[in-house]
Amino acid sequence: MATGKINVSVENIFPLIKKFLYSDHEIFLRELISNATDATLKLKHLTSIGEAKVEYGNPLIEVIVNKDDKQIRIIDQGVGMTEEEVKRYINEVAFSGAEEFLDKYKDAGKDAGIIGHFGLGFYSAFMVADKVEIITKTFGDETAVHWTCDGSPEFTIEKADKEDRGTEIILYIAEDSTEFLEDSRIRELLTKYNKFMPIPIKFGTKTETLPKPEGAKEEDPAPTQEVDDIINNPNPAWTKQPTDLKEEDYKSFYRELYPMQFEEPLFNIHLNVDYPFNLTGILYFPKLTNDLNIQKDRIQLYQNQVFVTDNVEGIVPEFLTMLRGVIDSPDIPLNVSRSYLQADGAVKKISSYITRKVADKLNSLFKNNREDFEQKWNDIKVVIEYGMLSEEKFFEKAEKFALYPSVDGNYYTFEELEAKIKENQTDKDDKLVVLYASDKEAQHSYIEAAKAKGYEVLLLDSPIISHLMQKMETSKEKLSFARVDADHIDNLIKKEDTAISKLSDEEKDKLKEELEKVVVDKGFTIQMESMDSSASPFIITEPEFMRRMKEMQQTGGGGMFGMGNMPEMYNLIVNTNHELVGEILNTKTAKKRERLINQSLDLARLSKGLLKGEELTKFISRSYDMIK
Amino acid sequence: MATGKINVSVENIFPLIKKFLYSDHEIFLRELISNATDATLKLKHLTSIGEAKVEYGNPLIEVIVNKDDKQIRIIDQGVGMTEEEVKRYINEVAFSGAEEFLDKYKDAGKDAGIIGHFGLGFYSAFMVADKVEIITKTFGDETAVHWTCDGSPEFTIEKADKEDRGTEIILYIAEDSTEFLEDSRIRELLTKYNKFMPIPIKFGTKTETLPKPEGAKEEDPAPTQEVDDIINNPNPAWTKQPTDLKEEDYKSFYRELYPMQFEEPLFNIHLNVDYPFNLTGILYFPKLTNDLNIQKDRIQLYQNQVFVTDNVEGIVPEFLTMLRGVIDSPDIPLNVSRSYLQADGAVKKISSYITRKVADKLNSLFKNNREDFEQKWNDIKVVIEYGMLSEEKFFEKAEKFALYPSVDGNYYTFEELEAKIKENQTDKDDKLVVLYASDKEAQHSYIEAAKAKGYEVLLLDSPIISHLMQKMETSKEKLSFARVDADHIDNLIKKEDTAISKLSDEEKDKLKEELEKVVVDKGFTIQMESMDSSASPFIITEPEFMRRMKEMQQTGGGGMFGMGNMPEMYNLIVNTNHELVGEILNTKTAKKRERLINQSLDLARLSKGLLKGEELTKFISRSYDMIK
Repeated sequence: MATGKINVSVENIFPLIKKFLYSDHEIFLRELISNATDATLKLKHLTSIGEAKVEYGNPLIEVIVNKDDKQIRIIDQGVGMTEEEVKRYINEVAFSGAEEFLDKYKDAGKDAGIIGHFGLGFYSAFMVADKVEIITKTFGDETAVHWTCDGSPEFTIEKADKEDRGTEIILYIAEDSTEFLEDSRIRELLTKYNKFMPIPIKFGTKTETLPKPEGAKEEDPAPTQEVDDIINNPNPAWTKQPTDLKEEDYKSFYRELYPMQFEEPLFNIHLNVDYPFNLTGILYFPKLTNDLNIQKDRIQLYQNQVFVTDNVEGIVPEFLTMLRGVIDSPDIPLNVSRSYLQADGAVKKISSYITRKVADKLNSLFKNNREDFEQKWNDIKVVIEYGMLSEEKFFEKAEKFALYPSVDGNYYTFEELEAKIKENQTDKDDKLVVLYASDKEAQHSYIEAAKAKGYEVLLLDSPIISHLMQKMETSKEKLSFARVDADHIDNLIKKEDTAISKLSDEEKDKLKEELEKVVVDKGFTIQMESMDSSASPFIITEPEFMRRMKEMQQTGGGGMFGMGNMPEMYNLIVNTNHELVGEILNTKTAKKRERLINQSLDLARLSKGLLKGEELTKFISRSYDMIK
Repeated sequence: MATGKINVSVENIFPLIKKFLYSDHEIFLRELISNATDATLKLKHLTSIGEAKVEYGNPLIEVIVNKDDKQIRIIDQGVGMTEEEVKRYINEVAFSGAEEFLDKYKDAGKDAGIIGHFGLGFYSAFMVADKVEIITKTFGDETAVHWTCDGSPEFTIEKADKEDRGTEIILYIAEDSTEFLEDSRIRELLTKYNKFMPIPIKFGTKTETLPKPEGAKEEDPAPTQEVDDIINNPNPAWTKQPTDLKEEDYKSFYRELYPMQFEEPLFNIHLNVDYPFNLTGILYFPKLTNDLNIQKDRIQLYQNQVFVTDNVEGIVPEFLTMLRGVIDSPDIPLNVSRSYLQADGAVKKISSYITRKVADKLNSLFKNNREDFEQKWNDIKVVIEYGMLSEEKFFEKAEKFALYPSVDGNYYTFEELEAKIKENQTDKDDKLVVLYASDKEAQHSYIEAAKAKGYEVLLLDSPIISHLMQKMETSKEKLSFARVDADHIDNLIKKEDTAISKLSDEEKDKLKEELEKVVVDKGFTIQMESMDSSASPFIITEPEFMRRMKEMQQTGGGGMFGMGNMPEMYNLIVNTNHELVGEILNTKTAKKRERLINQSLDLARLSKGLLKGEELTKFISRSYDMIK
């Protein structure tokens, strides 16, 4: 048996690094600016503990694009490197200076904010550059060093005459990467990845208007001056303590995050935890429409103020991906599959922490200013209802603040609703029946019929509400939801009292026969009912179960297989106690009777929104004739 | 000046390979099976050119999961490796045996189908395994070799007593990767990545029912036997020549691709090109609904029959991403940013080749069987219309087969439509006016009014049709589209003839005044028109321009800024030549006049779908009273 060591030759690995180090070549700029930031933060730490006897000052990172020379330069004012350090950190691929620094200065801990990890970032320069130079001067006394590499693994190193401390990286951009020589592209990348990094990043200059000097005339132009154009906000709101921030600060940070969003967020949740994991961030509730698909701005994920991705699937519970804002955590493993992420213990904890914080915030908003919460309900209900459906823990917590609005604009918690309707809306089987409408306009006549009985009608119009009702019915006992047009009102909540019929059974049978003759091909099931004489003579209803199953299928999953494709089912309810119905029975002429039935049926269909097209046109034309 | 060579130490790079070689750890299985496939295809090539004097036979690749021992084994019957080859290909990270093979056997070219490139795939084993063993026996005479590595860069190598040629890889799965010890998970991965790879892959066995022996009794159970469970179809349809495939073959391949799809595809397009790039594939047109968001099955991208991704954004023109099927091309650069992909010359050519093939296929379907094409139009129009909007070249080609259906079920090309309506629907300014409806039911009365004039009314109901009309109007001269309810019919297509009014100007003014008193708070602009006495007395219209701008905003972009939020605008057109209108003018009692106006207005609103909620309920209740 022989033993040996696996070998990696730089000739083999270097071409792969150039091509595949990151799947997205634009990452090079983020990596080089992260290195420049680390170099500056290291200096900050060393001066703070007295190991570097220099003035820290107000260091900048500068990015300069020179299209003519095909160069990008990144210049920092950080620790710099000695010749020995260049050999150590640059000439050894994947040897991490950052790790070494953190090992040496353990006390710096996370507070130093060092970003680097793997010692690979620098090599991403070769994804876009033919040749890379480093000119670096350490904060100590040693002479500056000039390192050059043309992308073959060969490099040269020599003394340089740079006087200021810090590192300058010069990229000679390759032919296939000239897109990065456009100012606009670099600005786009800086804004995407580095907008909130902790050291100021200068990219060119801009003109600023100054106040006019005293005594200047009205017509004198205001003086201007050229100032550094700083791309980033080094102290974004989420890195601060909640106690140091006012409502306005949160709002202005939202505008910073989403400059194209004109609508203000409804409220925010500041996340801030350092045990058992590190996480900071601010989540915003935007105004949401009922359309779950529209959602352009997304939660952004950062690690130590460096933008990583706006795909937080697997990290944030799905129902909260509709929110906006930022999350910053060094503890989220990236570069792993989403399925692994979801199984990861740390990520699970992060996800349930976020869920809990959101529930707590909602609860306190509800308790502290119920009126305001009610006003916002319509814009936030989709998130809350979705959360109730998908996360059991959230469902339990939401009991306290989930609202059930009525068509009259009252908002009840479920407990309040129950107390309010218990007496009047419990049926003879001791079941509490919650009545609701999905559309105040379309179901107006049905709502009125329910209100006439003193019933409370909820307005439940979220796209996923049918799923939530289903869940409520199974998680609570003796509870059912019924839409106001699911049956006639006396059947929706069945009481003990027997209805008195004006018609005899014989008359009913005869009438039913006549009706069936006329409506035979229209697909209605006829149901004779003895109702109030003041109720409508004809009512079309749509049974709850079938309709709800169809809705559930349409909004993704649930319901029963194949139900989504079933035809709509309608009943035609005839109020045998209504005067007009009696008149139909007593009309002797078949033709006249038929006309009465048809006109009544048309009106019932109109009320349910079923009279359309040619039939509606005919109805209207007939009605014009009746006016004349 | 000093020179030197950048160094990569295996101790630094190995931990990174383990963690980050692929962002998705599940890729390891695809990589190891690709290696096994390459080993088998190499043997095939060597036997075919006589360099390997062995029987190629019917080699398999076998995958065995042993949950108790925490092992996964992948066994092939390919070329195998000598000790020297193990040292060369395995002990050197990123040294590619496949590249070397292709260099040596240039004649093998693409036909050999060798997958490997970078010599990294094998190391992906360490993403999921603590320890990896290789037992391999070359097809030549040398003794088998046994290689072991525990994930430190140290390995051992010794002789083994394996007798059959080929390579066996044994993975000792790590604690954090036990998900891969589940049969179901491995089957899922094999199905996802390897379903169409060229060498049969065996994963366990299954029971097959055999025919009953002759003379068996009715009640005797049919005999069964255990057979290899082969996961893949080594010869998927897209690798064959179109001439070798029948319609049924394409359909059954569709079912293979999308086993959960019960609906058959409408038609397919076989892609097959080898210059200036290599591309094969089959695209299917599924039945599409008007909901652009629903789209679960997507086009799959393969490279040499290995599944890569189902995200073909940037490769396939956006309007065709609604199609289904497969594309296989070794020429598509992966691991680059999507923005780079879109700029890449080869990819641009691929994308425009696909567009052209799709246009050609549509054109030939239209020409060869127009009736069938018309029947399918409703299911494919969204793709075609989207293509016309987004790709200028496709827009030009689509002129020949894009159809404009009428409400009566006729289908016209634009040229045919123009010929048909030119005479009757050219207005006094020489502009051709195309009339359309978006909903046959809701716009029924308006459609009827247009048809009464002998006009052709199109039914255009795609979600993006307003954008396409806008484009047609700007790309053709003297053309405009108008929805039938945009104005009253005499105004939609203005002719020279002056209308005769039954009412004098004075009478009109008086009537208008009366009307304004009644409808003042309802937001209509009143327009007095002398129309046919048989036309409706009151008509509500919605001007084309504003409505279309709003629609364009709602379906993403276009239109004018902010228009999406403008309120709806309606006109109330009063036909001064209608009998009822004259009657209103002559009614002396204010109350009676008001009742007439209100009832007429309600009927006009009903016709336009604007009478809702309480007003509708009142209208219905009033109408019941009128029947009695």
